[in-house]
Amino acid sequence: MAVYVNGKVCKDPNLVEAEDFLFSGLHIAGNTSTPSGNIGTKAIIPGLNTFGLSMARGDFAPSGFSSPHVHPRASEMVLVLEGHLEVGFVTSNLENRLITKFLQVGDVFVFPQGLVHFQRNARGDTHVVSLSAFSSQNSELSRVSVACFESNPAIPVDLLAKAFQVDEKTASQMGGI
Amino acid sequence: MAVYVNGKVCKDPNLVEAEDFLFSGLHIAGNTSTPSGNIGTKAIIPGLNTFGLSMARGDFAPSGFSSPHVHPRASEMVLVLEGHLEVGFVTSNLENRLITKFLQVGDVFVFPQGLVHFQRNARGDTHVVSLSAFSSQNSELSRVSVACFESNPAIPVDLLAKAFQVDEKTASQMGGI
Amino acid sequence: MAVYVNGKVCKDPNLVEAEDFLFSGLHIAGNTSTPSGNIGTKAIIPGLNTFGLSMARGDFAPSGFSSPHVHPRASEMVLVLEGHLEVGFVTSNLENRLITKFLQVGDVFVFPQGLVHFQRNARGDTHVVSLSAFSSQNSELSRVSVACFESNPAIPVDLLAKAFQVDEKTASQMGGI
Amino acid sequence: MAVYVNGKVCKDPNLVEAEDFLFSGLHIAGNTSTPSGNIGTKAIIPGLNTFGLSMARGDFAPSGFSSPHVHPRASEMVLVLEGHLEVGFVTSNLENRLITKFLQVGDVFVFPQGLVHFQRNARGDTHVVSLSAFSSQNSELSRVSVACFESNPAIPVDLLAKAFQVDEKTASQMGGI
Amino acid sequence: MAVYVNGKVCKDPNLVEAEDFLFSGLHIAGNTSTPSGNIGTKAIIPGLNTFGLSMARGDFAPSGFSSPHVHPRASEMVLVLEGHLEVGFVTSNLENRLITKFLQVGDVFVFPQGLVHFQRNARGDTHVVSLSAFSSQNSELSRVSVACFESNPAIPVDLLAKAFQVDEKTASQMGGI
Amino acid sequence: MAVYVNGKVCKDPNLVEAEDFLFSGLHIAGNTSTPSGNIGTKAIIPGLNTFGLSMARGDFAPSGFSSPHVHPRASEMVLVLEGHLEVGFVTSNLENRLITKFLQVGDVFVFPQGLVHFQRNARGDTHVVSLSAFSSQNSELSRVSVACFESNPAIPVDLLAKAFQVDEKTASQMGGI
Repeated sequence: MAVYVNGKVCKDPNLVEAEDFLFSGLHIAGNTSTPSGNIGTKAIIPGLNTFGLSMARGDFAPSGFSSPHVHPRASEMVLVLEGHLEVGFVTSNLENRLITKFLQVGDVFVFPQGLVHFQRNARGDTHVVSLSAFSSQNSELSRVSVACFESNPAIPVDLLAKAFQVDEKTASQMGGI
Repeated sequence: MAVYVNGKVCKDPNLVEAEDFLFSGLHIAGNTSTPSGNIGTKAIIPGLNTFGLSMARGDFAPSGFSSPHVHPRASEMVLVLEGHLEVGFVTSNLENRLITKFLQVGDVFVFPQGLVHFQRNARGDTHVVSLSAFSSQNSELSRVSVACFESNPAIPVDLLAKAFQVDEKTASQMGGI
Repeated sequence: MAVYVNGKVCKDPNLVEAEDFLFSGLHIAGNTSTPSGNIGTKAIIPGLNTFGLSMARGDFAPSGFSSPHVHPRASEMVLVLEGHLEVGFVTSNLENRLITKFLQVGDVFVFPQGLVHFQRNARGDTHVVSLSAFSSQNSELSRVSVACFESNPAIPVDLLAKAFQVDEKTASQMGGI
Repeated sequence: MAVYVNGKVCKDPNLVEAEDFLFSGLHIAGNTSTPSGNIGTKAIIPGLNTFGLSMARGDFAPSGFSSPHVHPRASEMVLVLEGHLEVGFVTSNLENRLITKFLQVGDVFVFPQGLVHFQRNARGDTHVVSLSAFSSQNSELSRVSVACFESNPAIPVDLLAKAFQVDEKTASQMGGI
Repeated sequence: MAVYVNGKVCKDPNLVEAEDFLFSGLHIAGNTSTPSGNIGTKAIIPGLNTFGLSMARGDFAPSGFSSPHVHPRASEMVLVLEGHLEVGFVTSNLENRLITKFLQVGDVFVFPQGLVHFQRNARGDTHVVSLSAFSSQNSELSRVSVACFESNPAIPVDLLAKAFQVDEKTASQMGGI
Repeated sequence: MAVYVNGKVCKDPNLVEAEDFLFSGLHIAGNTSTPSGNIGTKAIIPGLNTFGLSMARGDFAPSGFSSPHVHPRASEMVLVLEGHLEVGFVTSNLENRLITKFLQVGDVFVFPQGLVHFQRNARGDTHVVSLSAFSSQNSELSRVSVACFESNPAIPVDLLAKAFQVDEKTASQMGGI
């Protein structure tokens, strides 16, 4: 029986072996043939349970983007390995201040826990490769456009129309990436 | 000089007095003449610093709603005091499952930390009064439509258009409540 | 097999459903026909495990009271919904300062973690309804008069007599509410 | 200006010296000429701020006792260095089960966080010396008889009388050790 | 099936009994006929799981020592019960400052979490008895000479030779206590 | 006045700006002309205070190595960006098991909090570039050979000689990298 603590399975520490601490393949470019031109690849490490840490690679095709999203349980620190990455996060209500930067290779930026943020390939001609660290073994991700417009079942369309100040027909046609 | 720890000022414990633990006025209905027909009233308590707890009242006019939002640092537990409240939260990616309920007076519901959730007065003829507790003295709130479409400065409109799958003209006219 | 973490059972996050986040009935007045004229009703929510949050309703008959007690694992924030509530907590040794307030409807007061506190219906003619939030899913409660004079088995009566400065006969007749 | 975090002053880590980590004198017997025949001596260590740890010595004259008390922020582990020590803690409501032991030299016992517990010299002819560790740099202590019957100002006597099931005259004469 | 949380097995709180909170025998001198003339005796307490606390006795023959080591998950507070104990810890890189003290009976000293520290019987004619508390139920211990020179399998000898600036022959003959 | 919480200065959240979340230059190869052929470059981010996260780049000349060390307050996750990296950590006493791996580009490995670990360029002809994330904003680092043999002032040489099982003359000539 698997036992979940903070979303991860616990293991008897005497039974761990090297493979429990290893993930291979983060050098492999993710397939960016997605609607957003962006794909994330998480390092899946079995022994990670309560370490408060995880890592993922990001690939962005030219003009690809990671749409506004939150990590419910983690702050994120992103490093640009290739290309130019536009990043931003929005401070909480009532301020709603966008704190934004154009990052170059070697730049590191932090997104505070739970705040809406985005990333975008700032150029139309090169790929971006980024590397992100998270302050939780179970950072999770919630894209706000998907959570709002692609949930299963759907959030009532009239509520979405009002929240985003569009007419209901538009809201019903909207989606999320 | 004020010292901030997790967003709150620390105070010498020997100098505290009853007023540091008190807030008055949570019985007063908030003014729901807002675009969303909803208003929140937080209990502001000076001595709260590291207690990991806070409380707020919610008022919803008929059909009023609290648009999809996250609390970056807290889970929320909401109790319906008056009226009928429709609530829902969306689990994290890739599942994006909407977990929803129509709450009656006396119902309590929990929104897990950092997940997108909404609340709505489910009736067109009565007010709703709710009471929420948060697992942080500094729960913060980020409305996703405001964070996306009303930030200062603005998130690039072409990114928003793609994220929410509307044309750029529509995106530029959208707002957030 | 149930697995306990901080006093609550863990559940596979993929199997949760709306009922795991719901409790109904906190609008129902508890039966205050108790020796203290007070009764608490906890919101029992299965999916609460590591959320660091819980909620309870308090009912107080005229002159009813919640005798001095501690919550071993939580701070408490109480809101008065009906009536007038006298509250107080005693700071730790050696100060032992009573910090007290007469609360009205809409007043919120905080009891810091682990400190002895009490609540009392300050009027003889009306009921009090209160709503409390706790900074733990497993706040627990220990009434000091019950823990001292009604434990099973009993604490030695001579120790209690000395601690509370009564003769042993009195101590042996004392009880706890 | 002193800055308090969890009740302790923070210090620039580059300025610490050996004395910040040192306390001398825990071998010195405390003066047990107190009403309870018990005295505690805390190790006061300036650099302890966020270490989550503290230590104290206990001395008990023959028949001396540490009256029922709680540590609001810490579990306690006690070791008997000399003599025989009777210990007990009461589980939380509604169980209120007394878990008790007669400890000999070399015995270690744990009192879980926030639960009412007591210690007593189990013999009338020898001293007891104990050593306690706490899971907080700021464990605090609240004696329930003192908090209830010796607070400043006093808790209303009629409430105490009912809570402890004595008449008001007795309650007004009671005290706390 | 045993479930591990932070290295300890969880237990249903309703099934605990006094023995779950008890360890006997910390008054028994450990056998210091070890290569280092030092032995530690941990108090093994079944119900300790998430209490963030543990305790151990240290015995040091004349000139016995506890070689440089770290506790990966805990700060340590040590009290000298008998004899004279020389203690020291080294602050982190780049400072590498040795903070050291000769402790007498009744002295308490703190070793901050994860820093390399040692203890030594400062006299050649008497035993030392010490008592240590740790800020974790699962403090663990890693002796740096053993971890480096006695691991199984071995760390490559050329790396050790360079790290410790000895020739490889010497490194291959080195061991750890 | 700067206020330190967990080793970092706190800042009023309303005054933060983009530069508080930014570090530039992690693409720049560190100068590996060090005795160990290894150099680390930390991303210094002013607004990091309580985020529980930090990041650093590692450069290893051919045969360069990071000598056995611990991070007192953090687990580490390392990603190989270029070259081949041999890594290992030693489990705690009494097991002292070396868990080791030869990592290739794209491999990720985790070093649990506070355990002795090392990294080495496994090839003699190419550089290694690695990227590490830490589960603390203040992970700190203590190299065991430096802490033992290069502290200021020095740890007594006879203790080191015995701990590492060399003669005192050798111990006095040893150093740390």
